[in-house]
Amino acid sequence: MKAAIVGGGVIGGGWAARFLLNGWDVAVFDADPTAERKIGEVIENARRSLPALYDKLLPSEGRLSFHQDMAEATVAADWVQESVPERLELKHKVLGTLSELAPEGAIIGSSTSGFKPSELNGKGARAIVAHPFNPVYLLPLVELVGDPGVTARASDILTGIGMFPLTLRKEIDAHIADRLLEAVWRESLWLVKDGIATTKEIDDAIRMAFGIRWAQMGLFETYRIAGGEAGMKHFMAQFGPALNWPWTKLMDVPEFTDELVDLIARQSDAQSGHLSIRELERLRDDNLVGMMRALKKSGSGAGDVINRHETTLDIHADTKLPVTGDRQIPQSWTDYNGHMNEANYLEASAAATDRFMEMIGVDTAYISSGKSYFTVENHIRYLDELHAGERMTVTSQVLKGEGKKMQLFHFIRGEGDKLAATVETLLLHVDLATRSSSPPSSKVSERLAEFASSHAGLPHPDGAGRFVGQRA
Amino acid sequence: MKAAIVGGGVIGGGWAARFLLNGWDVAVFDADPTAERKIGEVIENARRSLPALYDKLLPSEGRLSFHQDMAEATVAADWVQESVPERLELKHKVLGTLSELAPEGAIIGSSTSGFKPSELNGKGARAIVAHPFNPVYLLPLVELVGDPGVTARASDILTGIGMFPLTLRKEIDAHIADRLLEAVWRESLWLVKDGIATTKEIDDAIRMAFGIRWAQMGLFETYRIAGGEAGMKHFMAQFGPALNWPWTKLMDVPEFTDELVDLIARQSDAQSGHLSIRELERLRDDNLVGMMRALKKSGSGAGDVINRHETTLDIHADTKLPVTGDRQIPQSWTDYNGHMNEANYLEASAAATDRFMEMIGVDTAYISSGKSYFTVENHIRYLDELHAGERMTVTSQVLKGEGKKMQLFHFIRGEGDKLAATVETLLLHVDLATRSSSPPSSKVSERLAEFASSHAGLPHPDGAGRFVGQRA
Repeated sequence: MKAAIVGGGVIGGGWAARFLLNGWDVAVFDADPTAERKIGEVIENARRSLPALYDKLLPSEGRLSFHQDMAEATVAADWVQESVPERLELKHKVLGTLSELAPEGAIIGSSTSGFKPSELNGKGARAIVAHPFNPVYLLPLVELVGDPGVTARASDILTGIGMFPLTLRKEIDAHIADRLLEAVWRESLWLVKDGIATTKEIDDAIRMAFGIRWAQMGLFETYRIAGGEAGMKHFMAQFGPALNWPWTKLMDVPEFTDELVDLIARQSDAQSGHLSIRELERLRDDNLVGMMRALKKSGSGAGDVINRHETTLDIHADTKLPVTGDRQIPQSWTDYNGHMNEANYLEASAAATDRFMEMIGVDTAYISSGKSYFTVENHIRYLDELHAGERMTVTSQVLKGEGKKMQLFHFIRGEGDKLAATVETLLLHVDLATRSSSPPSSKVSERLAEFASSHAGLPHPDGAGRFVGQRA
Repeated sequence: MKAAIVGGGVIGGGWAARFLLNGWDVAVFDADPTAERKIGEVIENARRSLPALYDKLLPSEGRLSFHQDMAEATVAADWVQESVPERLELKHKVLGTLSELAPEGAIIGSSTSGFKPSELNGKGARAIVAHPFNPVYLLPLVELVGDPGVTARASDILTGIGMFPLTLRKEIDAHIADRLLEAVWRESLWLVKDGIATTKEIDDAIRMAFGIRWAQMGLFETYRIAGGEAGMKHFMAQFGPALNWPWTKLMDVPEFTDELVDLIARQSDAQSGHLSIRELERLRDDNLVGMMRALKKSGSGAGDVINRHETTLDIHADTKLPVTGDRQIPQSWTDYNGHMNEANYLEASAAATDRFMEMIGVDTAYISSGKSYFTVENHIRYLDELHAGERMTVTSQVLKGEGKKMQLFHFIRGEGDKLAATVETLLLHVDLATRSSSPPSSKVSERLAEFASSHAGLPHPDGAGRFVGQRA
C-alpha cells in the first residue's frame, strides 16, 4: 500500500510516520526545501513512541521517498493526504490538481481543521475531510466528513493503521473536536487578558482535574457519573439551568492585539521556555505512551483501539523454538540506571509464558472455563543490558511438560541477537475455583506433550537448574 | 487534625475520604438520612484507589463520625468544608452558621463551583472558595479564592493531603476550570441538538484526541508544541485569526427543553446504560490510577503532585529486619487469574532493593555520581496469592555483603502476615560510565557490612540457595 503526503510540517509528517510505521510506502511532496529534515524529525519521534504502545512488533517500515513533482508522488497511491496551510483558495488549487493526478480508486483526504467538504470541493475536487490530531502518529482520532461511500472505505483503511475514524453525521464548520477546542481557547484568552490566571495556571487547572477525566471518558460519560445513582437526567436537571448564568465570556471575541499575543507568548516562555520544543515533544510522547498503555490495560478509550489493532499484528517467527515475544521496549520500562528494569525482564517473560499458554490452548476461553496455570517459581539471569526503543525477542524451550507441571526456559534477546537474559519458570495447572492444582484438559496436555517431545532433543540450556550465586 | 464536612453527596463524601485517608479525623453533618450510606460508598471507592497511587502506605485512617448537630460536628475542627447545593440563600445560611460555630482558627471552605467569595460572604460569613473536582479523593485540583492570608494557610493544608491548590489572582464567576467546562458543555449540547454527533461520538472525539493531550499538558503547553520550532508566537499568528470565524455556537444558549434533556439521557443510556454507576465509577477510578501512575513515572502534572506527597510519607517499621516496602497493591498489578501478576512481585522486590540501597547510602546523589548496583540474578518463590487493595509489606535480610557483591533475601507478605513470596537477589556494584563491576564507596561498604554482620546470626532463610523445581 502507498500513501502520498502533500504538505509536510507537523501534521503531514505525522501522517507520513503513521503510514510508514504501519508498513505503507510513503511518498512526500512539499515545495519547502527543509521538508525532508522536518519530516525526518517527526518520524524519529514516532519511531521511539508508536511501537512502544504495542506488546508486539509493528510491520516492517515501508519505503519513504521525497518528490519535487506532485504527479510523481501520487503514482499508484492508495491514499493521498493533503495538509497544506488553512487557506481555501490554496486548498482548491491543491485538491483540484490531486483529483486529476491521483488514481481513480485513491482516497483523497484533507487535514483541514475548519473547512467542510462542500467548500473544499467547490471547484470540482473529490476530497473528503480526514482531520487528524497532533501527534498524528500517536493520537487515534481522525474526523471523517464527506461522501458516505468514500468515508466508509477510508474508515476501514484508517482502522487498519491503528487509528480511530469518527464519521460525522452532517458537515459543519470545524467538525466536532475543534469546535470544543475553540470554545476553550476563546475563554482561556479572556482569562489571561483579564489577569485572572496565567497560561501555566490555566494549564494546571486543566491537567490536574478534567484533563485526566477526559482522557478516558469524555464529557457526557463523566457527567453521567457525576449525576450519581440518579444518572444523566438528574445531572441535567441540576446543572442544565446554569447554562443561562452569565459565566462565560464566549459571546464576545477577545480582540487579537499585539499586546495579547505578547502577553501569552511571555507567559508561555516563563512556563516552559527552559525546555526545547524537541524536549517538550518527547516528554509529551512519553506521557502519552505511558497513559495509553495504562488505558490499554483496562481497554478504555484509546487503549481499546490499541488492543484491537494489536490482535491484527503477527509475530515474526524465524527460529526453531517458538517465538513468544517480539516487540519494541517502551520508555516506561527503563530505570535510573539507564536500562531496562529488572522487573520488566520478568514482565516480558510473563508475556512470553502467556503467549506459550495460548499456543497450547490455554487461551481466554480456556481460562474463562475456570482453568489456568499459576507460576510457582522463577529464576532469572541478567546477562546484558536492554534499552528503550530496542527490539526484543523471546523464544521458549519446554524443559518439562507432563501432568500438572510445565517448566519453561525463556531466552530474551536484544538487537544483534545478543542474549540479554534467561528465565527459568515453573508453573502448575490450577482449578480457578478451588485455587489448587489440577490436571489440564487432555487437549492442552497433548499439545504441551508435543512441544515437550520436540524440544527433548535440544541441549539442556546453559543456566537451567542454577541457584542464585552458583559459580558458572 | 480534624475536618468537619457539611453536606454529603459525591463532593462532600469525596472530601471526607481525602481527609480520612490522609489520617485526619472527619466529622460529617448532613440532614439526609441516607448520607451515611452514600458517604460510605464514596469512601469505599477511595480506599481501593487513592492508596494505589502511592508506592508507600498512606497514614493510618482517622476516625469517621456522623452528626445530627452542626455544632457537634465542628468542635475543634481545623478545616470546615461546606458542600451543600448551589443556591446562594442556602450557602448564606449554612456559611453564616459555620462562621459562628467553627473555631476561630479553622478554615471554612466552600465547594461552590459558581459563586465568588464576595457573594458567599455577603451576609457576614468568613468563607473562602475551595472548589474541588470529582472524584475529590483522586483529582488533585482545588481552586482557592478569597482572603490571601486564609488561602495561603489553606494551600499548605491541602498540599499536605496530596492536593494541588491553585489560588486565583482575582475572583470571577465560576473560577477557572468550570468556565472552560461550561464552554465545552454548551457547544456539545448544540452538537447533539443539531444532530451532528451523539453523546458517545462527542466523548470519543474528546478521549481519542485532546483529552489524552490535556491530561498531561493542558491547553497552552500543547499549542506551544503545535507551533513547532517557531513556538507560541507562530501558533498565535497562525491560529489566532480563526477566532473571528463563526465556528462556535456559543454566542447563543441552547434552549433547555424536555426534548433536549430526553435526547441526551437516551443517548447516554445507549452509550453506557449496560454499566451501573458503581461500575462506571470503578472503571473511571482504575483508569485514573493507571494514568496517574504513568504520569508519576515522568513526574508530569498530577504525577508530580503524587511524587512530592509520597516523599512526606513514612515507612511504618515494626520488625527486626529492615522494612523495605509497605504499600497497598494497585488494581493494575492484577491479571487474568484474579491475583497479583508474577512480574509485579518482582516489581515490589526491585522497589525493596532500591529502598535497601538508599539505606546503605546508594541514593539519587550516589547514583548521579556514576555508581550503582545492577541485579545479576533473581530467584522467586510464589507461595501465596495477593490481591488488589491488599496491604503488602517487604522485609529484607542480607545474605552476603562484601566487596562488589550484595545478596539480599526479600520476604513479601500480605495481610495477616501471610508469606506470599520470597525473592533471593544478587547484585553487583558497577561503575555507570564503564558499565562494569567496581567496588562501592567505603561509606557504602561500611553500612552494608553493618547490616550483613547484624543479620549474620539470623537463620538461613527457607528457600535460599534453591534452584527451580528443587524438592522441598
